[in-house]
Amino acid sequence: MNNVIVLGSGNVASHVIQFINENNELNLVQIYARNSNKIDNSINKNLVTDDYLKIKEADIYIIAVSDNSIAEVSKNLPFKNRFVVHTSGSADLDQIDSKNRRGVFYPLQTFSKNKTVDFSQIPFCLETEFENDFPILEYFTQKFSSKVYRISSEQRKYIHVTAVFVSNFTNHMFTIGNEICKENDIPFEIFKPLIQETFNKINELEPVLAQTGPAVRNDSNTLKKHLELITNEKIKSLYLNISESIQNYNVKKL
Amino acid sequence: MNNVIVLGSGNVASHVIQFINENNELNLVQIYARNSNKIDNSINKNLVTDDYLKIKEADIYIIAVSDNSIAEVSKNLPFKNRFVVHTSGSADLDQIDSKNRRGVFYPLQTFSKNKTVDFSQIPFCLETEFENDFPILEYFTQKFSSKVYRISSEQRKYIHVTAVFVSNFTNHMFTIGNEICKENDIPFEIFKPLIQETFNKINELEPVLAQTGPAVRNDSNTLKKHLELITNEKIKSLYLNISESIQNYNVKKL
Repeated sequence: MNNVIVLGSGNVASHVIQFINENNELNLVQIYARNSNKIDNSINKNLVTDDYLKIKEADIYIIAVSDNSIAEVSKNLPFKNRFVVHTSGSADLDQIDSKNRRGVFYPLQTFSKNKTVDFSQIPFCLETEFENDFPILEYFTQKFSSKVYRISSEQRKYIHVTAVFVSNFTNHMFTIGNEICKENDIPFEIFKPLIQETFNKINELEPVLAQTGPAVRNDSNTLKKHLELITNEKIKSLYLNISESIQNYNVKKL
Repeated sequence: MNNVIVLGSGNVASHVIQFINENNELNLVQIYARNSNKIDNSINKNLVTDDYLKIKEADIYIIAVSDNSIAEVSKNLPFKNRFVVHTSGSADLDQIDSKNRRGVFYPLQTFSKNKTVDFSQIPFCLETEFENDFPILEYFTQKFSSKVYRISSEQRKYIHVTAVFVSNFTNHMFTIGNEICKENDIPFEIFKPLIQETFNKINELEPVLAQTGPAVRNDSNTLKKHLELITNEKIKSLYLNISESIQNYNVKKL
């Protein structure tokens, strides 16, 4: 159950390979990579192959390649009826060729190549084509993290949309704030405790109940003042749109 | 220099009173509050007055009342030429009656009544009408925190707009994410490590450089898929607006 082969050499692949290599209960049987130079030096190079025909037997094959390459890599596997999972948040399970038993092993986090990852803090979204394979994938994943969730392909699509709102769009709010600060000689530093507290609050309250600020207070005076201060028309319309959206949500919900 | 009188009994007043009361280098001379019942039991009730005419002499008077009441409270003070500051992020310095030496002592954080505040982690934005008063206010504030910033009334307005983007609007992104999760039986919990990492990243990178996601990648395929998944027209238009804004910023800046 613990013999693993990883296919890929990108960000996610590197971190997964590193973890398996260092874990005593897991056995890294082999790595498939077109370019063995991309594999970290801490890994025994004899484990790496670039030949599909030389891929060995294992309990789990993890395809950690770009979304567009999952279909091709899985099609090239020279065997059938084995357990093959991908690591993508947005690719469907059926991107994997149907000759094998399919699954998804998706760690919900952004990875940077040179930053160590503490997998124990990362939630994993799992899916399997066959019920019997779920306990296998679950048992395997629990070596990485206790935060294991069963998530369908349909749910995974919405997870991706949600991640855009809570992470990508949130970062854009920071970008706009940072711009306003730069234009007015304000050190952006001073907002970091506030940002951290904004995040801490949703550990105690539902976000809709944690909402503060002029929009939710219906403080039209402050809204007007703020719109006068913002000179960039696009940012002004964003300010208006988000404020209206806050008012819609909070009126509806409270 | 360390004799302080606080006027007010709300959120900010309570936390400031608590801090001064417990600090050995500061002397809480008196509290002005219309209703002494709102003052915490740990505070000696003999310190509280509801009579403007009984207000004593002190080095600093801190008006911690709602924005709309600053003018009235400061007008009622029965003395002149003393050092009087307010704690508001959005009120101008000249909301304080001009008979006294004016200043602003603004802690940049959201306060909750029943949650202990660690002032040492909070940035303070200071402003004084007269140059000579700045060192007095700075010396006093340093008892609370080492994060002391000199900020003009004009800058403070932009700080408030920035806070709306980085805190209020960010919380709304969490609200929308939470809604999408509820509708699709996804535990919102799973996004917390991602949200924390989104915040951690801006400690290492400028927000504009930390931007990830389909908008900045110009991944029109994913944008299209996401717009199909979102059924609420208003959220759809928000998704589009913010995505366009990301594209504007990042094209402009990179």
